[in-house]
Amino acid sequence: MKKRSIFLLSSIALTLTPLVLASNEPIQPIKAPKGINTAQVELGKKLFFDPRLSKSGFISCNSCHNLSMGGTDNLKSSIGHHWNQGPINSPTVLNATFNLAQFWDGRAKDLKEQAGGPIANPGEMGSTHELAVEIIKSIPAYQQEFKKTFGSDGVDIDKITQAIAEFEKTLVTPNSRFDQWLTGKKDAISDQEKAGYQLFKSSGCTACHNGVAVGGNSYQKMGAVNPYKTDNKAEGRFTVTKKDADKLMFKVPTLRNIELTYPYFHDGNAATLTEAVNTMGDVQLGKKFSKDETASIVAFLKTLTGDRPSFTMPILPPSVDSTPKPVPFK
Amino acid sequence: MKKRSIFLLSSIALTLTPLVLASNEPIQPIKAPKGINTAQVELGKKLFFDPRLSKSGFISCNSCHNLSMGGTDNLKSSIGHHWNQGPINSPTVLNATFNLAQFWDGRAKDLKEQAGGPIANPGEMGSTHELAVEIIKSIPAYQQEFKKTFGSDGVDIDKITQAIAEFEKTLVTPNSRFDQWLTGKKDAISDQEKAGYQLFKSSGCTACHNGVAVGGNSYQKMGAVNPYKTDNKAEGRFTVTKKDADKLMFKVPTLRNIELTYPYFHDGNAATLTEAVNTMGDVQLGKKFSKDETASIVAFLKTLTGDRPSFTMPILPPSVDSTPKPVPFK
Repeated sequence: MKKRSIFLLSSIALTLTPLVLASNEPIQPIKAPKGINTAQVELGKKLFFDPRLSKSGFISCNSCHNLSMGGTDNLKSSIGHHWNQGPINSPTVLNATFNLAQFWDGRAKDLKEQAGGPIANPGEMGSTHELAVEIIKSIPAYQQEFKKTFGSDGVDIDKITQAIAEFEKTLVTPNSRFDQWLTGKKDAISDQEKAGYQLFKSSGCTACHNGVAVGGNSYQKMGAVNPYKTDNKAEGRFTVTKKDADKLMFKVPTLRNIELTYPYFHDGNAATLTEAVNTMGDVQLGKKFSKDETASIVAFLKTLTGDRPSFTMPILPPSVDSTPKPVPFK
Repeated sequence: MKKRSIFLLSSIALTLTPLVLASNEPIQPIKAPKGINTAQVELGKKLFFDPRLSKSGFISCNSCHNLSMGGTDNLKSSIGHHWNQGPINSPTVLNATFNLAQFWDGRAKDLKEQAGGPIANPGEMGSTHELAVEIIKSIPAYQQEFKKTFGSDGVDIDKITQAIAEFEKTLVTPNSRFDQWLTGKKDAISDQEKAGYQLFKSSGCTACHNGVAVGGNSYQKMGAVNPYKTDNKAEGRFTVTKKDADKLMFKVPTLRNIELTYPYFHDGNAATLTEAVNTMGDVQLGKKFSKDETASIVAFLKTLTGDRPSFTMPILPPSVDSTPKPVPFK
């Protein structure tokens, strides 16, 4: 009788408070961001799309973190200033707010610090913080919007990156079919997808890919069990810490919207999810999945695609005569 | 008495039917486009923003006709595949529907024919029509949207460019302060701006810059009165017709939103409106404007900035395993 009561209680709990179910899972649903400064978001959205933050006047944040796609450029490695080939795969900006740090090697502590990096990277946007600030502050409509947003005169790189980061905090993707299932909608995912999730858990994938972002919250060695072969020269966390133990330690990428963020891994060498799952099984877990097993995990991973941010395309204020000119070809 | 009656009649006409006023002016107001196929517009908007139409997977129509800016890239000449330097300044796509033909030399008869050009230009998007079609038709969500939009199976370059052109037809910019003045709002432009408009007319600018787009409806020689000096090698309409008389004959650009579409001329050599007005006065009209005259014409030109198209940033369907991969670096 006691057991039955408990059983009944559990059934009620599952029905009435779906988050109880979610809390028993290693993956947590995405919730809408809170405490967002909407004025900063609107300004940051403009700056995110503004190619004048680059030396060429051609590359914006959105060039490599394309919000019409999956918040990335879907290239093995990115195209930068003068068509420079970037050294690493561009991570998605979607749900990047959940990462413990930014960049594959975690060298930026948060979104704001990250936002300043590509602007001044000679192989990415190719500008300097000084030039970017000079350009933005030459534009009267921007001057006014910065003043209104921050309550003080002046434009500086701190305000620019703060606004971009605030916009990026809104770039979360709730309401995936998996999150619907997590929060109680039992038919939101198919039997194959459920089986894939069970296998994902039982195989050990959730040891690293867990939490709200299904990743992004730890550094792990690429090739934990079997060596990972690549021509890519990135050394991961070692670049930041200079500790031998951190060689090839990379931030675990989010699996949210993984259907959209191909190709995969820090080197972009896995073109398809099937390839990525098989390689992860091998080098991280020492497992060889059957074709059906891989297919079920891939099916599960595709349930992680959420609602992409929807917003009005920003309209940018024009440069004026005194605005420093872009330098695309020197 | 007869005269007075006529005067009274004119006054009433001016007050009650503002378009009568506009019809007496060489510039006509922009009206909303009619007979638009909205399904094609939505599909065309996606394609306009889709970088997979380029070989690199990096360049979309919007890269050089940036709708966050003035429908152009604001560079002297555009950046293309492998950072190729384009031979000519990228014209704005805003109000391009009003042009008598497309490109500076008019080599495309309409927006649809134009849309196919850059995709297959090795120095622009660097792809081929065959590859672009293969990529788009590999994507299930696109297949379905093409079928729904065109009522027939299959994706081809004809449907792709038709949809892009239909979207571009919507990219008009009504409600500029000048159009408000044209349609009866007397205080929509200042006295200096009115004086600038009068000088614009009396100097002969409206001989070429007239109609709805304030240009775009004729070919004229760059350097009609005095020779125009440039290192740019474009020969204008001659490239199409091979007639000597067409050397340096270019399509007159629209002056709508000219405040947004810097730098100016087919070579992009005029960085500012002041420079552009002075040069036009010299080489097209043999006039030297005083500083105040130039300032008033520039002030008038800035009243031609209309409402830029406002729309939700398109969300693009992801590629699938069978989609041909971008080739950015070979």
